[in-house]
Amino acid sequence: MSKDKSNSNQMWGGRFEDKPSDIMEQINASIGVDKRMWRQDIRGSLAHCEMLVKQGIIKDTDGKAIMDGLNQIAGEIERGEFEFKTALEDIHMNIESRLREIIGDAAGRLHTARSRNDQVATDFRLWTREAIDSIVKDIEELQDVIARLCKDHAGSIMPGFTHLQAAQPITLAKHLDAYFQMLERDKGRFKDAQKRLNESPLGSAALAGTPYPIDREYTAEKLGFDRPTANTLDGVSARDFATEFLFCAAQTGLHLSRLAEEIILWATPQFGFIRLSDAWSTGSSIMPQKKNPDAAELVRGKTGRLNGNLIQMMTVLKGLPLAYNKDLQEDKESTFDSFDAISLCIKATTGMLDTATFNTDRMLAAAEDGYTTATALADWCVMKLDLPFRDAHHVTGAIVKMAENKGVKLHELELSDMQAVNGAITDEIYSVLKVENAVNR
Amino acid sequence: MSKDKSNSNQMWGGRFEDKPSDIMEQINASIGVDKRMWRQDIRGSLAHCEMLVKQGIIKDTDGKAIMDGLNQIAGEIERGEFEFKTALEDIHMNIESRLREIIGDAAGRLHTARSRNDQVATDFRLWTREAIDSIVKDIEELQDVIARLCKDHAGSIMPGFTHLQAAQPITLAKHLDAYFQMLERDKGRFKDAQKRLNESPLGSAALAGTPYPIDREYTAEKLGFDRPTANTLDGVSARDFATEFLFCAAQTGLHLSRLAEEIILWATPQFGFIRLSDAWSTGSSIMPQKKNPDAAELVRGKTGRLNGNLIQMMTVLKGLPLAYNKDLQEDKESTFDSFDAISLCIKATTGMLDTATFNTDRMLAAAEDGYTTATALADWCVMKLDLPFRDAHHVTGAIVKMAENKGVKLHELELSDMQAVNGAITDEIYSVLKVENAVNR
Amino acid sequence: MSKDKSNSNQMWGGRFEDKPSDIMEQINASIGVDKRMWRQDIRGSLAHCEMLVKQGIIKDTDGKAIMDGLNQIAGEIERGEFEFKTALEDIHMNIESRLREIIGDAAGRLHTARSRNDQVATDFRLWTREAIDSIVKDIEELQDVIARLCKDHAGSIMPGFTHLQAAQPITLAKHLDAYFQMLERDKGRFKDAQKRLNESPLGSAALAGTPYPIDREYTAEKLGFDRPTANTLDGVSARDFATEFLFCAAQTGLHLSRLAEEIILWATPQFGFIRLSDAWSTGSSIMPQKKNPDAAELVRGKTGRLNGNLIQMMTVLKGLPLAYNKDLQEDKESTFDSFDAISLCIKATTGMLDTATFNTDRMLAAAEDGYTTATALADWCVMKLDLPFRDAHHVTGAIVKMAENKGVKLHELELSDMQAVNGAITDEIYSVLKVENAVNR
Amino acid sequence: MSKDKSNSNQMWGGRFEDKPSDIMEQINASIGVDKRMWRQDIRGSLAHCEMLVKQGIIKDTDGKAIMDGLNQIAGEIERGEFEFKTALEDIHMNIESRLREIIGDAAGRLHTARSRNDQVATDFRLWTREAIDSIVKDIEELQDVIARLCKDHAGSIMPGFTHLQAAQPITLAKHLDAYFQMLERDKGRFKDAQKRLNESPLGSAALAGTPYPIDREYTAEKLGFDRPTANTLDGVSARDFATEFLFCAAQTGLHLSRLAEEIILWATPQFGFIRLSDAWSTGSSIMPQKKNPDAAELVRGKTGRLNGNLIQMMTVLKGLPLAYNKDLQEDKESTFDSFDAISLCIKATTGMLDTATFNTDRMLAAAEDGYTTATALADWCVMKLDLPFRDAHHVTGAIVKMAENKGVKLHELELSDMQAVNGAITDEIYSVLKVENAVNR
Repeated sequence: MSKDKSNSNQMWGGRFEDKPSDIMEQINASIGVDKRMWRQDIRGSLAHCEMLVKQGIIKDTDGKAIMDGLNQIAGEIERGEFEFKTALEDIHMNIESRLREIIGDAAGRLHTARSRNDQVATDFRLWTREAIDSIVKDIEELQDVIARLCKDHAGSIMPGFTHLQAAQPITLAKHLDAYFQMLERDKGRFKDAQKRLNESPLGSAALAGTPYPIDREYTAEKLGFDRPTANTLDGVSARDFATEFLFCAAQTGLHLSRLAEEIILWATPQFGFIRLSDAWSTGSSIMPQKKNPDAAELVRGKTGRLNGNLIQMMTVLKGLPLAYNKDLQEDKESTFDSFDAISLCIKATTGMLDTATFNTDRMLAAAEDGYTTATALADWCVMKLDLPFRDAHHVTGAIVKMAENKGVKLHELELSDMQAVNGAITDEIYSVLKVENAVNR
Repeated sequence: MSKDKSNSNQMWGGRFEDKPSDIMEQINASIGVDKRMWRQDIRGSLAHCEMLVKQGIIKDTDGKAIMDGLNQIAGEIERGEFEFKTALEDIHMNIESRLREIIGDAAGRLHTARSRNDQVATDFRLWTREAIDSIVKDIEELQDVIARLCKDHAGSIMPGFTHLQAAQPITLAKHLDAYFQMLERDKGRFKDAQKRLNESPLGSAALAGTPYPIDREYTAEKLGFDRPTANTLDGVSARDFATEFLFCAAQTGLHLSRLAEEIILWATPQFGFIRLSDAWSTGSSIMPQKKNPDAAELVRGKTGRLNGNLIQMMTVLKGLPLAYNKDLQEDKESTFDSFDAISLCIKATTGMLDTATFNTDRMLAAAEDGYTTATALADWCVMKLDLPFRDAHHVTGAIVKMAENKGVKLHELELSDMQAVNGAITDEIYSVLKVENAVNR
Repeated sequence: MSKDKSNSNQMWGGRFEDKPSDIMEQINASIGVDKRMWRQDIRGSLAHCEMLVKQGIIKDTDGKAIMDGLNQIAGEIERGEFEFKTALEDIHMNIESRLREIIGDAAGRLHTARSRNDQVATDFRLWTREAIDSIVKDIEELQDVIARLCKDHAGSIMPGFTHLQAAQPITLAKHLDAYFQMLERDKGRFKDAQKRLNESPLGSAALAGTPYPIDREYTAEKLGFDRPTANTLDGVSARDFATEFLFCAAQTGLHLSRLAEEIILWATPQFGFIRLSDAWSTGSSIMPQKKNPDAAELVRGKTGRLNGNLIQMMTVLKGLPLAYNKDLQEDKESTFDSFDAISLCIKATTGMLDTATFNTDRMLAAAEDGYTTATALADWCVMKLDLPFRDAHHVTGAIVKMAENKGVKLHELELSDMQAVNGAITDEIYSVLKVENAVNR
Repeated sequence: MSKDKSNSNQMWGGRFEDKPSDIMEQINASIGVDKRMWRQDIRGSLAHCEMLVKQGIIKDTDGKAIMDGLNQIAGEIERGEFEFKTALEDIHMNIESRLREIIGDAAGRLHTARSRNDQVATDFRLWTREAIDSIVKDIEELQDVIARLCKDHAGSIMPGFTHLQAAQPITLAKHLDAYFQMLERDKGRFKDAQKRLNESPLGSAALAGTPYPIDREYTAEKLGFDRPTANTLDGVSARDFATEFLFCAAQTGLHLSRLAEEIILWATPQFGFIRLSDAWSTGSSIMPQKKNPDAAELVRGKTGRLNGNLIQMMTVLKGLPLAYNKDLQEDKESTFDSFDAISLCIKATTGMLDTATFNTDRMLAAAEDGYTTATALADWCVMKLDLPFRDAHHVTGAIVKMAENKGVKLHELELSDMQAVNGAITDEIYSVLKVENAVNR
């Protein structure tokens, strides 16, 4: 990024005698971050320009020159030929300055009836709206993989855990489907957020609107917004759409971190439930035998930045008076970072699951070892012996303890042993002590 | 709260030889917090019991006894006669234990086909759903007050600020309406969250459902849920409804903190825009002349706990394997606290605004002092002199600097002074230099 | 807590015409929280009173009456006879109001030359200083248990993990000692914080000090502070000692959460490294066979509130102008809560570890199963065959793969197999393939 | 950054059949972040190599070649000629790979007796230690500016605020000195953190140390560490030094945000206490009259990322088992970012203050307008009339109200008016009603 002091302040420096200090320029510039919104900025400028022409606020010829210039700039950026300058602070002034180079003074007319405040608000909403489209698509691909695994493993028995202790036998399909449901809600949250943010701030100008006879409905529609924002101060200063996006990303990350934790656990030799493909594992520089679930660890670890980015933005907004304050410049970096992180997390989870192998024998064995049919035993006592549940629970506790002391599984106990606990127990009880039976019911 | 070791563990202690240590009992007990859900717990038990009878899982007479007992307990708690015991850990076991005292062994049948895991998930969703109803009502009352003020102050001119510097003249109505809009989105977020959480986990049992022929649709409908949760593991372990609630509360708190900051600023003698009523101010123990905007400061300060509670729950969920883990017991305290805090913040803001007096003269004077019509001047140069906006901006900058140096307002400058900057300026320019004109446009 | 409107505002309400609204009283009162500092408040008042007498600012007789009254109040609170009133807002005014009841008008002289602002700052620093003493003691007790276990298990071999995959054999002592070291740093942080906060704000009055000839050195020494704070504005408005305390607690909590996670993992049947005592486990209301590591889960879960409390206070401080603002009232609840939580977490961890049994056979077997001597093999190739490390790493990788394919442990491979990978390998290699040898070196 | 698949996995891929997927490579690579530690990595490698030679673990000639090669690489990176490759994952492997290109197979011997785990731990501690030196220096420069201003403004009277209401007259020096004190504690925290982290993890290898006869004391001393870490597992997995650094930065940021808030307030025309230089202000693209305190707003806004980065790292550490997990790769980006942010914030604050002009007339006027001598009046009543403080407070409240109603300052009231409130008041009272007198006392 080049730095050209002579261009400094050309946009707003009219009454200033001194140039900004170097540190000031450094803390003030956002071009390193906001250049990522160049497409949105140009799209917004094209819509604004078209509207200015339609309303007769600028001349057709000027409008034509501006739009041609903007399209040329889009091409330059696309091809990596555009030189971004820190002294020009942000994406808006970088583009406008280049436009002036290309088309001359007419470039100055583009900024008629608008301000950087509504420009940045518009660009940022457009960007976030598209980011959500992209995330929703990624989530759906992950859900597809989960749905496929659920189909494949509808009969694969594993222990359902509570407190990380085997509790009751379930199927792998049921376990994975729980994540399908979580993702469905995550998707719903993103879509709700998208719907809520889809209002056009363009035309708010600095904060108070503008005396020019602009048509906000027109630019809103052009840019795919549902309507213009109802209040112009709110239009330029609202960033709850960013915090809501950051929350949606963080919550999705939390769900993925739960799955990642399970993948890491299941990939230990001790559990041995899952084997990750080479493409989704790494080795060690010193221990050649290692096959590490790095991708899962990184998905789990990225929860940190997703939570951190949310807190970042929420801290910025605390106690901020209306309307625009420069603090708000801190809004985009975290949003972009959370988008990148959650996109990577979803895709990595998709890739890991899609190529993983489940060791269903180990899963079944774990279900059988863990007295997981104890609940079924208790339920049988209630249903067949008409015991109150609490009593059945005590009976079952005593029987489990007996099995544990003898080092046998529940269905390996003698009937007489169980009858010593409660004399009414019959050999029908063996029908519920096998995990397969418990799952089928 | 009494502590009765002899009751300890009666629910799950079947195979345990030792009692929990004191510290264990202390860290484990949640009754101090979750007793707040007693209404929801009893409501859930009534629905569950009715369903058990309907399905023939328990006998009518037992069902009748249970329901009568539960209603008696509700009365006892309502009247403050119920003794909550730490040794009984939580609200569920406190109520069940009391039920056993009242109706004897039949009490044990209530827990047929359910677990504390789905009980707590059900209670907590019911509680949160009702909390949202209450918050939405509070928000609407605040919006009513704002709407009334907007009507009263449709013509009250004040400076619109950016960077806390007077920027352009606006009306107080427009400024306050920005908060109306923010609250409207906050309300929308709460309602979306409410809709998303409104599924019944009841029937999930520990995690895997239950072999009894229960009717989940029936209990869901009885409890006002839209449907049962699709996945039972998800049913007992999902807490994204809590984080979403906490986020909604925190975001609302952020909006209120922005308004609170402005009230605090405006209440300074330096701004003097607002005068709070005695009922919403406090004095000083040492400085008798002080009239402090404590309520606004507390609204601003409570942002801390709202953000903190959100981070609390998000930290708990990070990397938590399925299904229920005891970590989840940490879910309710923060949710209850955020509900209390945001309810108090909304009501306090409502009260402060409703009884405040706005000093419209000071507001108008501030708008006139701040060169806030400079934009209008620039716009005039564009519209009337056909200058490109950037050039008009430079012209205006020079004129403002001149006014500043002379210590006069813009409309107090001589025409010749302005013409020295740009010769084409005519005396028509005075028509836009008054704040009233700027606002009207 | 009783509510007596007639006492309302008696301390500061001189020029107020209206009483505070109910909501205002509710949001404003802190007595529910700050009564916990009653000892510190009385101690501070005693020191202040003694100094006032010494300096001749109040009369001996008044001083005597005040000190007797304060001691009587201390007794009343100790015995649970003191009635705290919400209308009196906070602990300071509750005590002063009671003092007036006991000794009459002389009570009013106690507040000479001080303000609630420096009173609360003083009380809170005293409280935090003592909280740190208590935590340091708790940490040392936990370290004692760890040290004992390290001694007992100096020869217990287990796999050292990276990425939760067995990496190299270590001893349980080495593993547990890592936590000893972490706790040592945690302790150091608390002590640094304690040293830094140990300055007396008393005498700052509202913010500017006081014209009375007070002796700040005297009260500082009386209260065990190292010196008075250098700046009175800073004295009343600084709360970095609270955030530092909250950080120290959160960081300690993070360390304990890592240990808790390991206890939970190790307590699974799959790992089977540890067996918790009954006193530190709980059972299930529906699954009688479960023995759940609830205490460890709660220690892990409480990380949430420790992080949340830190963010709470940091959010409160953001952008707060000098000196005292009412936002600061939000400082104590989180600090008290983090103290309670971290104290409970440390003690619970101490209790769990102290009564746990380690299954050293399972640990040894896990070390042997995991190819954990592969690094030793690679090191042997470097030392004995003079291979560059990277080459030795490749050789080892190939040998591990061979063992894995054959389903044998490394020391069960034939020499000829290994020589097929690198012909220079001799049978001396078997001396490093046993885990015991690797650990001893 | 180039991407060369053929180099992929050369360090650890021995037994892997497939290459990592693109997403895996993307989520796994850290070179984009950790290349910033290149100096520390080379310094650590030089010390390690020197030790290997000294201990006879590698040959002198190999050692010489390695050290020459490393120095050459340092030059290449310094001059921007080094090509960083994503496929080589991180800074460690990028440098080692280049070393192999330069000196051939001997490069492989550098990694003898160490692992990337202790390498990254060592580099990161070195980096953080130096970062603290830099921050401490910056803080001291800011303190110098504050000290100079305190000297210049020892007699500049301004209102001391509580609740943002003028409370008592103070001097600007006293106000600014409060920040000096805060910064002094911030510095102390950084230095405590630096002392605590200054232990060398080098020699921990993967986690268990190494069988080679290395000399950890030697490398520790070479690298300026106080000693080696006591426990090798702790050595590779501890990151509390990073969280402590992040906390120190965040707390410093909070203090600066308080000052920034005051600068923003004071720069409003309403307060008019301060005028920022052009070098530290910006203008508006639409409102030419604006002079915005952007730097102060950015300092305030950057609190967000400082808090967020802390939460990021604390979230990562929650529940992480020993020893190294890939989650820890998320440690550096936030640390680097907080360093950059806090450095910029400190320097910007220094620059702003150093070039700002204080309007002492406005400050004095604000002190006079705000009844700020009311406390002095109350104190006079106590000292001269022997009223209990509470009574004096009531008297003063009544007098202030009277002045307010009459629209006069306290010293403009008639003696008879004051005597109507309390007949004992004499005209000596006028000696304390002027702000200058209050400050002098």
